[in-house]
Order: sequence, then C-alpha cells, then structure tokens
Amino acid sequence: MEREHNLVPEDALWKRFLYRIIYRSDTRLGKLFDILLLSLIVASTAIIMMESVPQLDKRFHYIFLVLEWIISIFFTLEYSMRIAVVKNKKGYIFSFLGIIDFLALAPFFLSFFFPITKYFLIFRMLRMLRIFRIFNLMDFMNDGYLIVRALKNSSRKIYIFLLFLIIFSVIVGSLMFMVEGGRQGFETIPQSIYWAVVTVTTVGYGDVSPITPLGKLFAVVLMLAGYSIIAVPTGIVTAEMRNKRQNLEKICERCGNEDIDDDARYCKQCGKKLA
Amino acid sequence: MEREHNLVPEDALWKRFLYRIIYRSDTRLGKLFDILLLSLIVASTAIIMMESVPQLDKRFHYIFLVLEWIISIFFTLEYSMRIAVVKNKKGYIFSFLGIIDFLALAPFFLSFFFPITKYFLIFRMLRMLRIFRIFNLMDFMNDGYLIVRALKNSSRKIYIFLLFLIIFSVIVGSLMFMVEGGRQGFETIPQSIYWAVVTVTTVGYGDVSPITPLGKLFAVVLMLAGYSIIAVPTGIVTAEMRNKRQNLEKICERCGNEDIDDDARYCKQCGKKLA
Amino acid sequence: MEREHNLVPEDALWKRFLYRIIYRSDTRLGKLFDILLLSLIVASTAIIMMESVPQLDKRFHYIFLVLEWIISIFFTLEYSMRIAVVKNKKGYIFSFLGIIDFLALAPFFLSFFFPITKYFLIFRMLRMLRIFRIFNLMDFMNDGYLIVRALKNSSRKIYIFLLFLIIFSVIVGSLMFMVEGGRQGFETIPQSIYWAVVTVTTVGYGDVSPITPLGKLFAVVLMLAGYSIIAVPTGIVTAEMRNKRQNLEKICERCGNEDIDDDARYCKQCGKKLA
Amino acid sequence: MEREHNLVPEDALWKRFLYRIIYRSDTRLGKLFDILLLSLIVASTAIIMMESVPQLDKRFHYIFLVLEWIISIFFTLEYSMRIAVVKNKKGYIFSFLGIIDFLALAPFFLSFFFPITKYFLIFRMLRMLRIFRIFNLMDFMNDGYLIVRALKNSSRKIYIFLLFLIIFSVIVGSLMFMVEGGRQGFETIPQSIYWAVVTVTTVGYGDVSPITPLGKLFAVVLMLAGYSIIAVPTGIVTAEMRNKRQNLEKICERCGNEDIDDDARYCKQCGKKLA
Repeated sequence: MEREHNLVPEDALWKRFLYRIIYRSDTRLGKLFDILLLSLIVASTAIIMMESVPQLDKRFHYIFLVLEWIISIFFTLEYSMRIAVVKNKKGYIFSFLGIIDFLALAPFFLSFFFPITKYFLIFRMLRMLRIFRIFNLMDFMNDGYLIVRALKNSSRKIYIFLLFLIIFSVIVGSLMFMVEGGRQGFETIPQSIYWAVVTVTTVGYGDVSPITPLGKLFAVVLMLAGYSIIAVPTGIVTAEMRNKRQNLEKICERCGNEDIDDDARYCKQCGKKLA
Repeated sequence: MEREHNLVPEDALWKRFLYRIIYRSDTRLGKLFDILLLSLIVASTAIIMMESVPQLDKRFHYIFLVLEWIISIFFTLEYSMRIAVVKNKKGYIFSFLGIIDFLALAPFFLSFFFPITKYFLIFRMLRMLRIFRIFNLMDFMNDGYLIVRALKNSSRKIYIFLLFLIIFSVIVGSLMFMVEGGRQGFETIPQSIYWAVVTVTTVGYGDVSPITPLGKLFAVVLMLAGYSIIAVPTGIVTAEMRNKRQNLEKICERCGNEDIDDDARYCKQCGKKLA
Repeated sequence: MEREHNLVPEDALWKRFLYRIIYRSDTRLGKLFDILLLSLIVASTAIIMMESVPQLDKRFHYIFLVLEWIISIFFTLEYSMRIAVVKNKKGYIFSFLGIIDFLALAPFFLSFFFPITKYFLIFRMLRMLRIFRIFNLMDFMNDGYLIVRALKNSSRKIYIFLLFLIIFSVIVGSLMFMVEGGRQGFETIPQSIYWAVVTVTTVGYGDVSPITPLGKLFAVVLMLAGYSIIAVPTGIVTAEMRNKRQNLEKICERCGNEDIDDDARYCKQCGKKLA
Repeated sequence: MEREHNLVPEDALWKRFLYRIIYRSDTRLGKLFDILLLSLIVASTAIIMMESVPQLDKRFHYIFLVLEWIISIFFTLEYSMRIAVVKNKKGYIFSFLGIIDFLALAPFFLSFFFPITKYFLIFRMLRMLRIFRIFNLMDFMNDGYLIVRALKNSSRKIYIFLLFLIIFSVIVGSLMFMVEGGRQGFETIPQSIYWAVVTVTTVGYGDVSPITPLGKLFAVVLMLAGYSIIAVPTGIVTAEMRNKRQNLEKICERCGNEDIDDDARYCKQCGKKLA
C-alpha cells in the first residue's frame, strides 16, 4: 500500500496551492484546514451518537439531518479535491487514508439508493478513523508508530498467548459446566465459557457467578490463575517496548543498523565503534 | 511558575524567625508547625466528609460549624503570615502552592456573600491538596518527582494510547448497539460506549452486560482484546521508569556510557572513576 | 519424556511416505493433512459445545452423533497409523503428544462399555489439546517456548506469590467475617475468603459486597492493597522475559559480555566478531 | 530482631538431638517433623474455617473441639521444647518466628479465662503464619526474600502512589457526589469515595454504579484514568525487581559490592575489573 508521503501535486499553480493546504500543515491555511476537518469529524461522530438517543432524535431530527448533509457535502468536495490536486491519483485512492476517506463517504451516497437501516450507522462511524489523518500531520505519529511497532514485533507471542487463553477458558468453562450443572448462568458450555473469560480477564460482571461451594472454590483457583496470567502479555509488550525505545536515537554510520541499545559502544551488526 | 525554593525572608528579625518556622522544617518548632498543619488539613477533610452524612450532620452540625470556623481562621492567619514574612510576595502568591493555599481559603469567605450550596464542598475539598506542601518539606518529593517525570516523559504515548482506546470503545460500542439492539442497557450508542469502556478497562460493574449469545461472543472478543491491551500503558510507563532510574545527568567521560546508577563511583563499562 | 523429534520411520517405503505426511509438514500432502486435522479438532470441539445447548441438541442430535462417529473413526485410524509407521513405537505412545492423542480417543471407546454421563464431556474436550500438535509443525513453538521458559524460570517466585496471596486472602476473609458478621454473603469464613479473593484479584463480581460502613472501609483498604500487589507477578514475569529475550547461549569470548541479542554479529561492548 | 540462624543448642546430648529435629531439616526425622507441623497448621486452619459453617459446626462440634485440643497441646509441647533445647532462650522467644509461635498458642490459653467470642477466631487464624517457618527450612526463602526486598526498596514510591491514589479518589468521589446527587449509592461523600476506589482499582462490584448520563460520562473518564494509572505501581515494582534480579549471582572480589548489573565489566564501586 502506497504511503501518502510519495504523493506529488499536479503542476497547475492553483493545484499546488490547494495541495499545500489540504495535504500539508506547514502553512497557516493548512493548519486552519486541519482544524476544520478535525471539528467536522468530531461533530459528525457526535451527531451519529445523539441520533441514537430517542429523546434527542425526536427533538432535533431535522437539525441532525441538515448538519449531516452539510458535513457529507464538505467531505465529498474535499475528497474530489484530494483526487484532483495529486498527480498519482490511484496512489491516493488506494492508500490507507484514501480508502478510509472513501468509506467515510460511501454510506451517505448509498442512503439514496437503499433504505436507511441502523447498519448504516457503523459505516458512518468509520468516519472517526479519519482522525488518524490529523495525527499524520502532527508529530504524534512517531510515538504512535513506536507503540504499533512494539505490538507488531510481539504480535506472534500475543497470538500464542491469546490462543492459550482461549483453550484454557474452553477447558475451564467445560469443567465449570460439570461442577455447577444446569444452574443459573451455567446452562450450557458456551455460557460457562463466557463466564470463564469474564473471570480470567478480571472483568467480573457478576451476571453469572458461581453458587455452589465447589463452584466457588473452583472460581477462586481460576481467579488466582488469571491474576498471575495477566503478567504474561504485560511482560511480552514491556520487554518489546523497552527494546524499541532505544532504536530511534542512534544509528550506525557504516551499516545503517538502527537497533542500537543504550549501552552499546560498538555496532552489533558490523562491529563499527559508535560515536 | 516560580518555585518556593527561591523565596527569601524579609529582613526584620521576627520575620526571619517566623519564616524559619512556617517555610522550613529544620527546627523543632518548624516540625511542630508542619504536624499541626497536617492535622488540620486531615481534620478539615474529615469534617467535610462527615457533614455529607445526614445522621452525623444532624447530631453534630454546630460542632462541625465551629471547627470549620476555627480551622478557616487558622488558615487565614497562616496565609497572611506567609505573605508577610517573604520579601518576594508576588512570588509566593502566584507559586503553585500559594494558589492552592488561596483556593483552600476562598470558599470560606465566599460563603459570607453567597448562599452555601453543595458546590462549595468540592472547593473546600481542594484543601486536601495542601498535603503536598508537607511532602515538599520531607524527602518524599524526590521519589514522587521521579514518578511524575516518568509519567510526563511518556505522557505523549499515553495520550495516543488513550485516544486509540476512546476510538476503539466508540466503534465497539456502536457495533454492540447494532448487535444487542435496544435491549436493557444498550438503548443508545452512548450507553453502549459506556458498556464498552466498562468492559475494556476490566472494571465490569455488571449494570450493563450482554444478553444475546451473539452479544456475549462479541463481549468475549472485547475482553480478550482488553486483556492484551492493558499491557500497553504498563509497558510504556515501565520502560520509561526503568530509564529514569538511571541517573540522567551522569555520563562516563572515557567511554560515553550513559547507564550510570545513582550509587556508582566507577563506570561499569570501562572502569573509569566518575567525577 | 521422549520428544517426537527422535522418532524415525519404519523402513518400508509406504511407511516412510505416510510418515512424511503425518509427522512432517514439509510436503503439500503433509500440509493438507495438518489442515484436515486442525479442522476436525475444531469441529469436534464445536460439536461438544453445541451438544450442551438443549435447543441445538434436540434438533441436531443425530447429526452430532454421526459426526462424532466419523471424527472418532478418523482419529482412531490416524492413531493406528502413527503407531504403525514409526520404528520406536513406545517412544511415540508415551511421548507427550502421544498420550494426548490417546486421551482424545479414550472417551469414545469407553462410551461403548459405560453409560454416557456428562463427565465424558471434559475428556472429549481434552481433544482440544491436540491443537498443540499443529503448532509443533509450524514455527510458532519457538515463541511459545520462550514464554513457557520465562514462566518456568519464574515459577518458584510465582508459587511464593500465590501462597502469600492465599494466606493474605484467608486472613483478610476472616477479618471481614468478624466485621460484616453473618450478613448476606459473609455467613461463613470460606464465603468471606471467596469475597476476599474476588476483591483482591480485581474481578469484583458484586454477588458479595460489603454493606456496613466499616466493611466498606475495610474493602477500600483491601482494594488499594490488591491494586499495588498486582504489580508483583507482572514484575516477576517481565524481569524474567526481558532476560530470556537475550540469547542465553551466546557470550563474547573477548570481554565476556553476555548481553548479546539474537541478531548480533559483533559484540556491542568490545566490537569483537561473534562466532 | 534476632534471626534463628544464630540460635545454638544446649550442650546436653538429648537436647542437641531434639534441636536437630525441631530446628533443622537435614535429617529424616527432621523432615518428618516439618511435614507433621505443616499438616497440623493446615488442619488447624481448616477446622477454624469449618467451625464457621453452621451446618458443619452443628454436626461435628465435638470432633472439632477435640482436634483443636490435640493440636493446641502439640503446639504447646513443641513451643516448650523449642525453648528448652536452645541456649539463647530469649533469642528464640523474641525472634520473629518465636513471637508468631507464641501468638498461635495464646488464644487457646486465653479461652480458659475469657468467654470464647468470634474475635478469638482471628487470633487463631494467625497460626497460619507459622507456615513461613517451613519455608525457612526449604530453599524457598531465597526467592521470597528477593520479592520482599524489591517491594521494600520501592515501598517509598508505592506509599506516594497510594497517597496520590487516595487523594485522587477523595476528590473524584466528592465530584461524583455533586454529580449524582443523593441517588442510590451516592448518598454521602464517603459512599461516593467507596465507589471511586471500586472503580479506579477496576474491581467494579456493581453494587454502586452511575445512573445519570453525566455520572456515566464522569465514570468513563475515571475508568480510562484508572486504566492508565495501573501501569504506575507495575512500573515501579518491575523496574526494582529487574534491578534486584542481578544482585545474586555476582559479587566484586575487592570491595564486596553485590549490586552488579548483568552487563557490567568493572565494579561500579571500586572500579575493579570483574571476572
């Protein structure tokens, strides 16, 4: 997937001017545009939320509708302009942010052809993801990138951990199904597995909780296990993040190795003495 | 904001004497004054709490009133003296602790002019913040400062994490609104978002919990996700705190090793005596 | 316990061929076999779960029965073949995965001689453990092994922590039994201990919660304690995992540096090329 | 407080023999004695628990009474012998474990002079602490000591964190008292503070939960804050534990410094090259 960094504006002067405003934030107008965009995204999300509240929807239904139209038209214009001003139009349309921009518009146009159901809502909610566009412009992405990279590097270990957790919950849930029989909340194995996950993740709604003494004993063992297990994903991510923290500052001049620990004096890839 | 360290007493001998008692704790009287202050802050907070309990307020209303007057008058006197004995009066008044001292007094005087509402309570509660004044005098601040600095250094990452968490909760809440329809506790999108936050942070009140099998399946996925996500802020702060533990100001002149513990007298990498 | 790595096929050509398919996944047929096995394990687990739901069991009882027969027969054939194609038959039968393979079959055959009770369920659920066989073939095991090793190395500390937690919960539960008397949920000491564990692990079902002011104060103290205690297992595992990340087998010959990353080719301390 | 290590047996041969059995576990009889002691402690705790269950107490009251007598007499004999066989009798009596041994006996003898109330229970529960005596003999104490030392070293930071948490909960609770007015569960400030602690520690019983939309919004903010805050104690202990892990293996030959990091090549105290 192409990154927006590679996009270049068309040659026409007014397109270069608009490109600067829409895609960059190093000018005053560019910053204003970003703030306007951010406000509209937040407003749009807030409207969708308020529409779902019957009392508010009854009173302000038409105001919401009009605002939704205004925002959608603005987003449509913006989307057209974004395509118009870049040279590599496909590059934008199929970039990560380009696809999100499109998905944020789709439900509005689909609503002309199909009856509006509540399933449209979630598509409209995707508009929130456009917030990430703003971050891209601010320096925020650097830190966010660090977190994502640490998660990605440890994703394999986290998958294994989750899989283990699921198998553990299924077995514990089945055992509890046998212990608590058909009692309230433990009528079926999937129900008991639901309880096991609620317990082991320490959420503990309390809509299902053990009733028999044996069930409670069993739950106590499970809770203590879950309490110790919580340390595992934490340990994985912490160890990874600690490692990733050190990458950014230093770089080996000879081989370009960026994975340099704080206390390293020689590059571990090429053996060059570090400055 | 000016720090209290820079404050100097007025020249008059009695002011220097009072300054020593009020601002410092290196004399016996100074220590006694601190303990008196601490007791009054705790007493004041306890009184406010007890006032809110109808049974206690009915029985001891006048005792609470009188005590509140005594403590407020003491704090007023203390505030006046604090201003009187320092040379740089503005420096104190607009320092962090000076503002807190003022806010702790304000509600008492405002209550003469405005009817007392329960909103006064929270202002009076701010008095608790004066406890930090005591820490300033004890050695406690050093360790506290370490924690605060680690939090501040990783605040950017934590903001991003929180923002991600909020967007995640909004989308999950919207999805759950579609899944659980208008059922008990999922009547509106904001309600469903409330549920999503309660679940993903593993608080799990249980006032809202999924009812349909699909909703429960969805909740299970969310809980497992939340259980893995909890590792992220932990990883961020841990990595930062581990780093902060090491004395940031020191560096070995010979080998450039920056990983120097507080109690180190020789570089652990090259054996050079540290300055 | 012997590991499967040491197993060798019989000499007959068709046995070598089958061995390659069943035990390895470096051929196309071998991979297909693994996928088939995985699907059947998941299907078998899903059937057991669905059987426990009365509505589904009533409608699809005979379909479930037939599917169970088919899967069991396949597993039986596979088990026989696994024994047939290896030279060291005992080595397979008493290996970790061999025992799981046997346990996964046992309930099916036992059901011919004994009436089927719900206690058979849990034995049939053990079939899920066969999933680990698939991981063994994929590269997954490496990361999983890291986690397991970190847990094993810190298991001693975790045992002590759990023991401390249990003693703590017992004492706190007994205290709470005295505080809350015979009130709802605190009728007996074991009940109160159950509450203490639910609270200290931050699960918090809410089926039992303190009622008297003193009980609530007590609970607040316990919760704050539990909130600080949670850091202990996390700290243990994190410290261990951080350590395990580093390649344990490697050491720099010149300077004795043991902190050598997996991808290092030169010692980061002295710049020596690593063997 | 003197440690048991310093105790020496009396000169008489039979006392040396008993000393070996009671205080040490390097003989077969010594090990048997330890196991007997452990069993009696567990049995005694179990009896106390079961006594609190009315159904069990009604049926087995006299059996419990007799067993309690037997165990108490055994502990009395053991306590007398422990005093008899050591030379430095005061050393034992006022050692940590000696005091626990005494406290474990006290309630039994006090029950002759005072009527038995349920407050005796908790004293009898203290007997559980004797379990630590067994650990002392096993190698377990080393690992436990590591944990305790890490906690002790970071105790200052944890105190500050707890204090901050308490002040935070008090202020948040007061704010919530204003928001949710006198509604169910938020009738008084102490009640609201109880809710704040239940929420911020992610226990979430659900016996008190916000009802108004504003209250829920407020709770969401609090939960997200609590979710980030949980990282702080974890970070503190992890950083400390990581540090402590490294102590045990290495020691500087010249100055006896035991605080030697994994990657240190020179002693950071005296600059000696480490082996």
